[in-house]
Amino acid sequence: MMNKIRVVVWGENVHEREDERVAAVYPDGMHTVIAEGIRERGGDEVDVSTATLQEAEHGLTEERVGETDVLVWWGHRAHREVADDVVDRIQKRVLQGMGLIVLHSGHYAKIFKRLMGTTCSITWREAGEKERLWVCNPGHPIAAGIDRYFELPHTEMYGEPFGVPAPEEQVFISWFEGGEVFRSGCCWRRGNGKVFYFRPGHETYPIYYDENVRRVIHNAVRWARPQGLWIDSCPNVPVDKAPEKIEEKGAKLHKPGDEGYK
Amino acid sequence: MMNKIRVVVWGENVHEREDERVAAVYPDGMHTVIAEGIRERGGDEVDVSTATLQEAEHGLTEERVGETDVLVWWGHRAHREVADDVVDRIQKRVLQGMGLIVLHSGHYAKIFKRLMGTTCSITWREAGEKERLWVCNPGHPIAAGIDRYFELPHTEMYGEPFGVPAPEEQVFISWFEGGEVFRSGCCWRRGNGKVFYFRPGHETYPIYYDENVRRVIHNAVRWARPQGLWIDSCPNVPVDKAPEKIEEKGAKLHKPGDEGYK
Amino acid sequence: MMNKIRVVVWGENVHEREDERVAAVYPDGMHTVIAEGIRERGGDEVDVSTATLQEAEHGLTEERVGETDVLVWWGHRAHREVADDVVDRIQKRVLQGMGLIVLHSGHYAKIFKRLMGTTCSITWREAGEKERLWVCNPGHPIAAGIDRYFELPHTEMYGEPFGVPAPEEQVFISWFEGGEVFRSGCCWRRGNGKVFYFRPGHETYPIYYDENVRRVIHNAVRWARPQGLWIDSCPNVPVDKAPEKIEEKGAKLHKPGDEGYK
Amino acid sequence: MMNKIRVVVWGENVHEREDERVAAVYPDGMHTVIAEGIRERGGDEVDVSTATLQEAEHGLTEERVGETDVLVWWGHRAHREVADDVVDRIQKRVLQGMGLIVLHSGHYAKIFKRLMGTTCSITWREAGEKERLWVCNPGHPIAAGIDRYFELPHTEMYGEPFGVPAPEEQVFISWFEGGEVFRSGCCWRRGNGKVFYFRPGHETYPIYYDENVRRVIHNAVRWARPQGLWIDSCPNVPVDKAPEKIEEKGAKLHKPGDEGYK
Repeated sequence: MMNKIRVVVWGENVHEREDERVAAVYPDGMHTVIAEGIRERGGDEVDVSTATLQEAEHGLTEERVGETDVLVWWGHRAHREVADDVVDRIQKRVLQGMGLIVLHSGHYAKIFKRLMGTTCSITWREAGEKERLWVCNPGHPIAAGIDRYFELPHTEMYGEPFGVPAPEEQVFISWFEGGEVFRSGCCWRRGNGKVFYFRPGHETYPIYYDENVRRVIHNAVRWARPQGLWIDSCPNVPVDKAPEKIEEKGAKLHKPGDEGYK
Repeated sequence: MMNKIRVVVWGENVHEREDERVAAVYPDGMHTVIAEGIRERGGDEVDVSTATLQEAEHGLTEERVGETDVLVWWGHRAHREVADDVVDRIQKRVLQGMGLIVLHSGHYAKIFKRLMGTTCSITWREAGEKERLWVCNPGHPIAAGIDRYFELPHTEMYGEPFGVPAPEEQVFISWFEGGEVFRSGCCWRRGNGKVFYFRPGHETYPIYYDENVRRVIHNAVRWARPQGLWIDSCPNVPVDKAPEKIEEKGAKLHKPGDEGYK
Repeated sequence: MMNKIRVVVWGENVHEREDERVAAVYPDGMHTVIAEGIRERGGDEVDVSTATLQEAEHGLTEERVGETDVLVWWGHRAHREVADDVVDRIQKRVLQGMGLIVLHSGHYAKIFKRLMGTTCSITWREAGEKERLWVCNPGHPIAAGIDRYFELPHTEMYGEPFGVPAPEEQVFISWFEGGEVFRSGCCWRRGNGKVFYFRPGHETYPIYYDENVRRVIHNAVRWARPQGLWIDSCPNVPVDKAPEKIEEKGAKLHKPGDEGYK
Repeated sequence: MMNKIRVVVWGENVHEREDERVAAVYPDGMHTVIAEGIRERGGDEVDVSTATLQEAEHGLTEERVGETDVLVWWGHRAHREVADDVVDRIQKRVLQGMGLIVLHSGHYAKIFKRLMGTTCSITWREAGEKERLWVCNPGHPIAAGIDRYFELPHTEMYGEPFGVPAPEEQVFISWFEGGEVFRSGCCWRRGNGKVFYFRPGHETYPIYYDENVRRVIHNAVRWARPQGLWIDSCPNVPVDKAPEKIEEKGAKLHKPGDEGYK
């Protein structure tokens, strides 16, 4: 029997408390609504909890990250307030095999920029316009149960260019009423971890109550579950442990037992 | 007529000054020998200079980086001493279009880890063993003029697993006398910039005097030259600038003229 | 509960019958030994059968291919004898989502060349030399249970350049006693199907009795199982079915109901 | 001094002669207009000629293909009439290093499907609607001189899913008035050759007179020029030519001088 997928939904939880228009849509925070959506569809297969910026270590202690299979990330206004050492440990865990799902404005989250190595920039407009997300590969597990496309009646617009490395799989591309397009569902692998970026979402719209959005996030959680873990180091292989017998020659900069220079 | 390729060879310049065995091989620093190799083959096509860790801002001021087409990077013991803001500006410039060639122990350089988003770890052994670099694509411009393979009689060994995202092009794979293999020549794109990692090199061996190594580095400089520059931002597109006429609806979190939250 | 993975092991079954040295190693054909290895490890999770060149439609009728989840392919001397329409249907099924595992000399199989679009050439030598397969990503599900490397005491050598598109994931690279290297375990996606090429194998050696080889093939079967199926077509979207209301303008080359020109 | 880029524009030349609406737009065939656009911008840097389906060997003899640096392909109604051996030789030449630019309905050309290995299917609609092509990477050489986007007032629509392997570089994505999106400018490498697919074009509209379309095609010709040629084979490496000294062991299926089984 497969183990449950341990999911942590991380929410910045700032706009929800400081802006009454956002609070009206997400009175208990966006993270709770996102978590609820995964729980609802995932049933016994998932074990979903939440964490927020305001908790100690943002709710992402070494121990907790070490017990997480898939991390879902929502942040916007407070990207800079996320502590670098927490980002370090998330990155490390992704490289070992944890899945990461980055939502909407999370394109500028430290952890996403860290894993991509690029600007992750976009163009944008707040006009409450219509978005239509097209499925680029109807057989992809993240698109399971989605028709040829789905629509969101009112969203913030994100437009190309999207400053990321070429996605390894393109699952969705968006059409916007105002005339732009955007690569809205993108997959990458980093180390052993799978990373999925999913565009929909804005604080002022009930995006995370939408059935199709919830379906995609749940699909992505299943897709991103670890398939193997690997704890990477930089081991020296002493001469007497070389697979082929060799004789040591030449000068050595390192003493036996040294680690590499990081 | 094409402009000259403005190349900066950056050298950490630490072991060369502190370890007499290294100084014996590279009395004027490794960067000078690497630069000389590019100059020798590049002739009028290149304009090569050097920079080192010890200079102000490591010799890589905003202005200088802004005038560099291809940066060649050699570092080992002092990766941690490279200032983060210098790394920031190099990364920014690569994403705009500058080429970056990372040599040997530079797999752990901050700038390389930054662009890859992964551990960049390896396994390693100092035993002065033989390395044979195989060409995986004889038509690749970086392999121009190289036969099916070339050999280095004495090198440090690097072995798999190499903790990087899957290379977009595999140019070389190494065979080691002691029994290991390594992806020794790898290409990636990040933003508009081309990145090439090239394994050979170790302080205690005359690797950068080797004709084949010099040929590859020169080829890589030509390959990595910028093919277009783009200065990325995160522009808001106001409603009246939308390509299609739309009406503004819904709440706005941003005031006109706001930048996105980074 | 998950359904069983329906695996078909296809064997050319020529050398086994015509060359007594091969018959001595694989008296019932290579396909039976490969199938047995998957069955042994897969237990209740798999449903394994075999098919050979000599059967009607090579044992791969439309119906059977339509009921296959993962196809394992072994061929060598008779690549040209595989009927093109059988190749067509395998390709179609892979694009819909079936997994394909191509072994050793199958690098020149019609179906592999078809899916890669390239020469798939190698260099080679029959000298019974030693091969050591290094794991490039210890967390990859195809490498599960394999140590840092494993060895085969006597194999045919395959060397670079390997004429394939850059692998999306590099799982193994081989070191050969005679001095060559080879990308021995490579992953690609084509349509919805996953493709894994695995180098080990030669008719005259008991490669498919080796525990590590069997483990990898079984892992690959699990990795390649379909994650969604999609039957692709080229549908016309009539004007009155466009998501946005538009008016028809201009000349039309196609009449209503026409298919595209293939 | 660089040699001229030898460009051949191949046109099917069927609709232009058989449909008067097409003939009205392209009285001398589409290939002549496409060729003219490249000549106009390329000046002394290019040497442009044309070839059509109706010529002997479709104007693409072994010799001519062997002297072509970049082949531009326009076909639609007569894909099936292109001889397989001509497709074979084009594929071979692309793998050696020739650039290939495939236009519009060429997504279903034999040569494109051959190189991709997939269905290359789309959805489509003829309604003379507006298309807006967005630049996904403003620094890409193929987008040089193009603003954030450009528009075509009347085109046939192509929509996702586009049945191709994930593009290695995404240069353009289209927005359509009727509500669809499409990956309109995609790059891949196959062997040493660069392949660019560019969507715009339909027989009944003056697409290939458009300044932006012409600019992109010319940019693509420059981008796709060969950077090295390699004539691939499948050489046996005899035991006495192995880089490391080995002794021959075991049975051999091949006699000295045999080629591999293709």
